[in-house]
Amino acid sequence: MRMVDIIQQKRDGGRLTREQLYFAVQGFTKGDIPDYQMSAFAMAVFFRGMDAAEIADLTMAMVNSGDVVSLAGIRGTKVDKHSTGGVGDKTSLIVVPLVAAAGVPVAKMSGRGLGHTGGTVDKLESIPGFHIELENEQFVRNVNEHKMALVGQSGNLAPADKKLYALRDVTATVNSLPLIASSIMSKKIAAGADAIVLDVKVGSGAFLKSMAEAEELAATMVSIGSSLKRKTIAVLSDMSEPLGTEVGNANEVREAIAVLKGEGDARLTELCLNLGAHMAVAGGVYADYAAAYGALNGLLASGEALRTFRTFIEAQGGEGGIVDDPGLLPQARYQVKVRAEQEGFVQAIDAESVGVAAMLLGAGRARKEDAIDYAAGVSLLKKTGDAVRYGDVLAVIHSNSENNQESIGRLVAAYVIGADRPAPVPIVHKVIG
Amino acid sequence: MRMVDIIQQKRDGGRLTREQLYFAVQGFTKGDIPDYQMSAFAMAVFFRGMDAAEIADLTMAMVNSGDVVSLAGIRGTKVDKHSTGGVGDKTSLIVVPLVAAAGVPVAKMSGRGLGHTGGTVDKLESIPGFHIELENEQFVRNVNEHKMALVGQSGNLAPADKKLYALRDVTATVNSLPLIASSIMSKKIAAGADAIVLDVKVGSGAFLKSMAEAEELAATMVSIGSSLKRKTIAVLSDMSEPLGTEVGNANEVREAIAVLKGEGDARLTELCLNLGAHMAVAGGVYADYAAAYGALNGLLASGEALRTFRTFIEAQGGEGGIVDDPGLLPQARYQVKVRAEQEGFVQAIDAESVGVAAMLLGAGRARKEDAIDYAAGVSLLKKTGDAVRYGDVLAVIHSNSENNQESIGRLVAAYVIGADRPAPVPIVHKVIG
Repeated sequence: MRMVDIIQQKRDGGRLTREQLYFAVQGFTKGDIPDYQMSAFAMAVFFRGMDAAEIADLTMAMVNSGDVVSLAGIRGTKVDKHSTGGVGDKTSLIVVPLVAAAGVPVAKMSGRGLGHTGGTVDKLESIPGFHIELENEQFVRNVNEHKMALVGQSGNLAPADKKLYALRDVTATVNSLPLIASSIMSKKIAAGADAIVLDVKVGSGAFLKSMAEAEELAATMVSIGSSLKRKTIAVLSDMSEPLGTEVGNANEVREAIAVLKGEGDARLTELCLNLGAHMAVAGGVYADYAAAYGALNGLLASGEALRTFRTFIEAQGGEGGIVDDPGLLPQARYQVKVRAEQEGFVQAIDAESVGVAAMLLGAGRARKEDAIDYAAGVSLLKKTGDAVRYGDVLAVIHSNSENNQESIGRLVAAYVIGADRPAPVPIVHKVIG
Repeated sequence: MRMVDIIQQKRDGGRLTREQLYFAVQGFTKGDIPDYQMSAFAMAVFFRGMDAAEIADLTMAMVNSGDVVSLAGIRGTKVDKHSTGGVGDKTSLIVVPLVAAAGVPVAKMSGRGLGHTGGTVDKLESIPGFHIELENEQFVRNVNEHKMALVGQSGNLAPADKKLYALRDVTATVNSLPLIASSIMSKKIAAGADAIVLDVKVGSGAFLKSMAEAEELAATMVSIGSSLKRKTIAVLSDMSEPLGTEVGNANEVREAIAVLKGEGDARLTELCLNLGAHMAVAGGVYADYAAAYGALNGLLASGEALRTFRTFIEAQGGEGGIVDDPGLLPQARYQVKVRAEQEGFVQAIDAESVGVAAMLLGAGRARKEDAIDYAAGVSLLKKTGDAVRYGDVLAVIHSNSENNQESIGRLVAAYVIGADRPAPVPIVHKVIG
């Protein structure tokens, strides 16, 4: 078997066998197949696509390129969650304790990643004392005892995916549906998931701008899951503006606590209940979505979800008191109000601009080695559809620097204000799977 | 400027500017742009193509990636010739002395290359004493004195093309029209050509199987030439069977001498007169094709073309006596007759099979470091359209080995014999430019 023939076959629109895909992925992982062949292959896949069986085979080839986590020591169906990412996305901080409170065991691995704010791991590390390093034995014990534990992605999970992603990033082959779908699914399966709930973001603030693209990716991942006997559900959710009201790290934890208390942003709460209910059904705890949704709502109201979050934090060394007094979380030295310069209704808030504003404040990383300022971030006091008068506070900047001009400018520019109240957009567009 | 953006622009069907193409080619040549980006770019070009201006810019970027030969010391219009390659293609050995005899100066650089037989340089080196190394000054002097000289490709001509070709070869991106056209044209322009006559082979024995493909490539190269002020003419010639009757090295020189004496294969002679007449017109020696064709025919009949060939050989140290006594060329120890096993008419001769048969005898190189056996080769006594009786000699194998079974098998298999005489196919299908 020769890689050049595999590239040519895909280039000419042929379908590849499992053996060919394993040959390519294993050779690439070991370094026998050079980057220049893999990047040409990725570009051929960009143009020619892959059918469902090829994508499933590619996914498993990447899963088997490294270690596969065994969660056999955990009782019950292990349900994982993945988001395709967006600005202000703190759903994991809320959904995981929510479903854990309902009795779904969640053994979660999360990344730091690059972006406008930190990843879930960074957000949790803004809690004083919290640590994400757990030995495997402790990880399993915590899940059995407290129904949830969260560790940083470590070890050698799907190394082929990691290597391929780095290559795609510099060869304009990121934006290929089979490659995106197999990348996401391979990581979840290597991390030991029995079932997967995907939060596929769609809209101007997401990398998938149109419903058609989002539906196609969602359907592809659901089909991979079905081929590989991992029950998979995709929730297509709105990312036409930042999610919730907080963008940053400590302030996103603060918002998560508010939602877990039943006092949070309504759209964010709705999304978390929706995702959580699908996870709880996939985990076999409730018979159907309606029952799960109602029960999870009750766990917010009763304070049980919040208690689970506190127990989880304390089990990983963190200051549990933050759930009662969020003032114990890092606070920025300066709070700068960004005011409206015109009147009307908020038509839209450009998520990308808000994200860049937060990043400039220090909330995110441009490069892997950058440090994060946990206290830095943005609070959005006005959201799409809200009425605004001249001089109203649109947003507050949390910063440890006196010089925030660029972030202020980006926030002002992010708000589109117009005469009429826009029609509301649902937070969940569609569920597939 | 970033290479990833250039790749993406081409991937999405955009057109690239001269600056972008120079950035890509120069960076790649210097090693600043890695192979994995260039291969993804080549695959994007495979799918999206390039317009005429892009191809001309890419060509000049490759020309300027290295040295450009100055032929300013040679009087007259310097006309070069290029063939896209086929089995038994010895046209350069004939056409170059033919047009030189007519007064067109030919300063030719030729390659060795890989293939079923050697390249023009290897074929000439089968002449005892002949050497292809000439200092530039001597090269120019020989052209001025004898109207022709031929050297091996040396120095740093179009290094970007060389590097890119090696990469395309292992990434399934060879077969891209803009990349093929710019590769051919960049080498000719870097070698100092004022005008170029292209012999574009089409048919089962050529890499371009259909007229449509051949016409597209020919038109693209003519358009590059026109953009870059190098008069370019493409002759689309038939390669549905091997060209002429000899395939090898010394035996192809022998056949060239026969044609230069006016005693050669009619189709091969016709092609050489056609190519030569276009070169002579491009070189400004004759006013039109008909006049040139007639004059060149006269140079064969008068022996002038053969005398020019002899003078050229002697000027480069070779044994000129071979033109009178081809027996002075290397002779193989064994001549093996391959006989017909059925009766009828030759319907077709598979060029690829004949080429492989010759290569197995030692006439060609599979790897750069392989040695060539100059005496090895195949003589095709029957060509398409010829009547064949049982036991007739179809072909003769020239070999220095006793074991020629595989070559014999391939030759037998190459001949398709059937009941009816097939309709004749013209040697020149079309001229573009």
